[in-house]
Amino acid sequence: VKGCVIFSSGFAETGAEGRAIEDRLRETAARTGIRIIGPNCLGVFNSFSGFYGCFSNTLDRVFPQAGPLSIISQSGAVGSHIYWLTRDRGLGLRYWVSTGNECDVDAAECVSFAAEDPGTKVIALYLEGARNGQRLVSALRRAAALKKPVIALKVGRSEVGAIAAASHTASLAGGDAVYDAVFRACGVYRASSLEELVDVAEVAAQGRFPKGPRLGVVTISGGGGIMVADEADAVGLTLPEMPADAQADLKAVLPFSSPRNPVDITAQAFNDLDLFGRYLDRIVGCGAYDAVIAFFTTVAGSPTMAPKLIEALGKVRESHPDFPIIISMLADAALTRRYADQGYATIADPGRATRAVAALWQLAQGMAPVPDAVPPSPVPAGEYDEVRSRALLSTVGIPVVQGRVATSAGGAVEAWRAAGQPVAMKVAAAAIAHKSDIGGVALGVDGEAAVREHFERLLAAGKRHAKGSAVDGVLISPMVTGAVETIVGVNRDPVFGPVVMFGLGGIFVEVMKDVAFRLAPFDEATAEAMIREIKGFPMLDGVRGRPRADVGALAKALADVSRFAAAAGDSLESLDINPLAVLPVGEGVLALDALVVPARR
Amino acid sequence: VKGCVIFSSGFAETGAEGRAIEDRLRETAARTGIRIIGPNCLGVFNSFSGFYGCFSNTLDRVFPQAGPLSIISQSGAVGSHIYWLTRDRGLGLRYWVSTGNECDVDAAECVSFAAEDPGTKVIALYLEGARNGQRLVSALRRAAALKKPVIALKVGRSEVGAIAAASHTASLAGGDAVYDAVFRACGVYRASSLEELVDVAEVAAQGRFPKGPRLGVVTISGGGGIMVADEADAVGLTLPEMPADAQADLKAVLPFSSPRNPVDITAQAFNDLDLFGRYLDRIVGCGAYDAVIAFFTTVAGSPTMAPKLIEALGKVRESHPDFPIIISMLADAALTRRYADQGYATIADPGRATRAVAALWQLAQGMAPVPDAVPPSPVPAGEYDEVRSRALLSTVGIPVVQGRVATSAGGAVEAWRAAGQPVAMKVAAAAIAHKSDIGGVALGVDGEAAVREHFERLLAAGKRHAKGSAVDGVLISPMVTGAVETIVGVNRDPVFGPVVMFGLGGIFVEVMKDVAFRLAPFDEATAEAMIREIKGFPMLDGVRGRPRADVGALAKALADVSRFAAAAGDSLESLDINPLAVLPVGEGVLALDALVVPARR
Repeated sequence: VKGCVIFSSGFAETGAEGRAIEDRLRETAARTGIRIIGPNCLGVFNSFSGFYGCFSNTLDRVFPQAGPLSIISQSGAVGSHIYWLTRDRGLGLRYWVSTGNECDVDAAECVSFAAEDPGTKVIALYLEGARNGQRLVSALRRAAALKKPVIALKVGRSEVGAIAAASHTASLAGGDAVYDAVFRACGVYRASSLEELVDVAEVAAQGRFPKGPRLGVVTISGGGGIMVADEADAVGLTLPEMPADAQADLKAVLPFSSPRNPVDITAQAFNDLDLFGRYLDRIVGCGAYDAVIAFFTTVAGSPTMAPKLIEALGKVRESHPDFPIIISMLADAALTRRYADQGYATIADPGRATRAVAALWQLAQGMAPVPDAVPPSPVPAGEYDEVRSRALLSTVGIPVVQGRVATSAGGAVEAWRAAGQPVAMKVAAAAIAHKSDIGGVALGVDGEAAVREHFERLLAAGKRHAKGSAVDGVLISPMVTGAVETIVGVNRDPVFGPVVMFGLGGIFVEVMKDVAFRLAPFDEATAEAMIREIKGFPMLDGVRGRPRADVGALAKALADVSRFAAAAGDSLESLDINPLAVLPVGEGVLALDALVVPARR
Repeated sequence: VKGCVIFSSGFAETGAEGRAIEDRLRETAARTGIRIIGPNCLGVFNSFSGFYGCFSNTLDRVFPQAGPLSIISQSGAVGSHIYWLTRDRGLGLRYWVSTGNECDVDAAECVSFAAEDPGTKVIALYLEGARNGQRLVSALRRAAALKKPVIALKVGRSEVGAIAAASHTASLAGGDAVYDAVFRACGVYRASSLEELVDVAEVAAQGRFPKGPRLGVVTISGGGGIMVADEADAVGLTLPEMPADAQADLKAVLPFSSPRNPVDITAQAFNDLDLFGRYLDRIVGCGAYDAVIAFFTTVAGSPTMAPKLIEALGKVRESHPDFPIIISMLADAALTRRYADQGYATIADPGRATRAVAALWQLAQGMAPVPDAVPPSPVPAGEYDEVRSRALLSTVGIPVVQGRVATSAGGAVEAWRAAGQPVAMKVAAAAIAHKSDIGGVALGVDGEAAVREHFERLLAAGKRHAKGSAVDGVLISPMVTGAVETIVGVNRDPVFGPVVMFGLGGIFVEVMKDVAFRLAPFDEATAEAMIREIKGFPMLDGVRGRPRADVGALAKALADVSRFAAAAGDSLESLDINPLAVLPVGEGVLALDALVVPARR
């Protein structure tokens, strides 16, 4: 026996006793080499060989039609739901796997298998959580390298959802935002619903991908064009105007049409069915667009109009065999199939059709460059205060504001004089990580008397809270003005390892939750994408007459932090640079405060 | 002839010549009393009388089934699309109207008609823009008063979409955000897609509405429960835990089920179909929920399982005739109809089912209280600088920071001394509305020398820019500290009249676009809802250890502004209070700057 599928539940998902039994299964698999799918799963099926090792009720109706899609689902019922949606739309199936508790074979391994399988062209993945992050990342990157689009629905965004996910298959899921970072890094399209998963799988299976974000729209109704335009704006597609010559051609055909983009054929199409083909051919061929959506709605399903329309579309497809075109239309399954046979993807809803184009464009861009491996360089153990954290950052290339630890009031005054401007004063003691919480920080201190007074106060506060361990003195740094304050953080995700977080200082992170994440390590280009991703980006880009901030230096610092985090690996629990001041263009960045927390060993 | 329908295009949507012809149609209608639908429309149909005054291609397949839904659409093709979606789902139709260019009958009048029509239970509205805002608001309020749910899809959110909408039916649309305010005020549910419009219309037509936001979920798969939980979190529904006694009952039935909520029957349901009914009955009857979603997916469509399931569901419905239950399931049309016949709404996608529950709950809450009419009180004409704007605000009850206009440096020093703290100094001249732009503002000025210096500088700047008209002096006010700065604005929408905008100061409005709108006038409760709606609300609620701001006083100020704006009506072009400082609880609010712009007459 080389493999087995275990349907039964009553394992890790039920508590300690079940977990112990499942652990024995896992050990048995490892010892004997028997591969196990499940337990607590619905099994597998293979539409090519006709093997149905599963108890999905969908099979009491009809057997699957063979095709290019492999479905990998951690939930059996959801996997069945996805399969049924694809079947309803005539999308053929290759492999279907429900992985359940994953005591041996996990979703990542199934992705690897499907990626290497020549018969699989597209992979649909339903995920509640991964246990082995590295394996998932490798599998997804392998699929991207082999040009097998992966569309993933990862659930458990919400707090209740995450708890439900954890109790469902007893998985230890990484933070949900981290999956965004994972999918982004691996070129996976993250769907937000079952329907979107199936929409994108269906159009991706046609193998026609846009080379850019420029969307052309041809419609028999202004209304359809507006809906596409609204959604395009929301998902980052552009709707450039038709070139003047193409507009003139179409105006000549139909003087009262509106051929800017969206291009409205108007209800005149009912009187002259040739218009569908002529308009579509012109907009596809005009060179201004990377994909086209045709809103043909119920007309495409009309038994009196459809035959002629399908014929016209066939000719357009002959002239433009590789151009991605999605038709938003309502027709029965048989008629819809005839459009598919002419090489057209169909999605009923114009908004969903638009999101599918955006998904295709994201998939076409592939995965982020796989970063060079970083040689391990663990963080030295011990307690880190600001002084030691700053020193560590300096060694990895992050510019840090200058600072002097004064051990006497006189030394503090000297440091202030040397700075020649107001200073920040902070108690320096290895045992005190969170200085603000104990009143250990004074900002904008100026004048000899003030410096002396704060020195004594900060030292006293430090001694009161250091609980007997040493207080080194007071760290004195010049105040930095005219900068945009940002926050850079590293956290070790239990599943995916070090993840870098970026956001703007203060309320942007704390109130607006406006942050971006990436897996470490990454390069400067990825860092810049991350910076531009936050909603508050205009703050760095010269909003309200401010000078533009040095985004290039910020990107370099983020990439440097990511390489440091990757090198540190499991030795680093977290890192906070808060704030990282971003100065005007050409002046770089400066870490004004930092805290390294090594992992407890 | 009492009425006519004009299909032809070539009117206002094509330009000046067409507009002139359309104006003649409008005049003819007014003069003769003949009511006109169109031009540039697809016509109307009435499924009860069998009148089909339209050329929708949907009618070449099958005639509509009579039912409770009236569809009103400014676009004929989109109206046909909506009708076909509802027909596919077995939702019967009452009236179908496409209004086109609306030279006489507009969508608002159709809403009024459908609201008064005893045969119409639910109204689906597709809108690109309204010309007569007052008529639309009255119609929607009438529908709400008569308990006829209105679900609206208003398109043209994006810039390209709005331009396309304007060119499509030549309508002068109000700002898109204003429609949110209109729908909110009138108890209309704003759908974000055609599919959502139809989902909500279908469940609303069943007439069972939740009395609160508490959602129970019963599922045969953990995965379905997670998807519902994620979406519920996004749309403001709660998923409280099952009461302990109900959990115990269900644990007794099935020891390895997970009955917290979502309540997972697990695949054991396949072995014991009675579980569906027992679980559903217990969760519906436990008293902890206002609506229930059952994720039965493909199982509900299985020919071997469905008959028993439908029987069980029939019994549950008998025990709980009025409780809203939506089943997320995949089945063919005939089988789906059998669930509907048992009184169950069905929506295939669990996320869409969840959004539909949220929509039902919003509809159940009805419209905002219709505010008392405000007697007209036009804003006196003339030019308003800050001094005059402040004075006007004071007369309508908005607290304004004290200020003195100094006409000499000595007077300025005196005002500063009287304030006893740093002051704001601003040039006061009727001709200078935007003081900052000309360097006419100095903040935090302290000390006699500084006050004198700024006085001279500001006066000079004022004289340079007043272009010969009078400069009254320099307005001096104490600086206000410890407040949260907000922005309150009024703008006259060309369609809906005065609209009040609220947001937090600075980057919250300018970068994050975090604002809320309401039609004027409104009461304090609506104002408070508006304040809590913005993402930055925690800034007023004591985030990061700050004192809580006086939200009650802020709500009163917003309501006062809204009444002022409603009274001013068309005489007010705009009002900006920027900033309106909100002091800690009990200390009220203070307008620190204000600008009234009367309408040009």
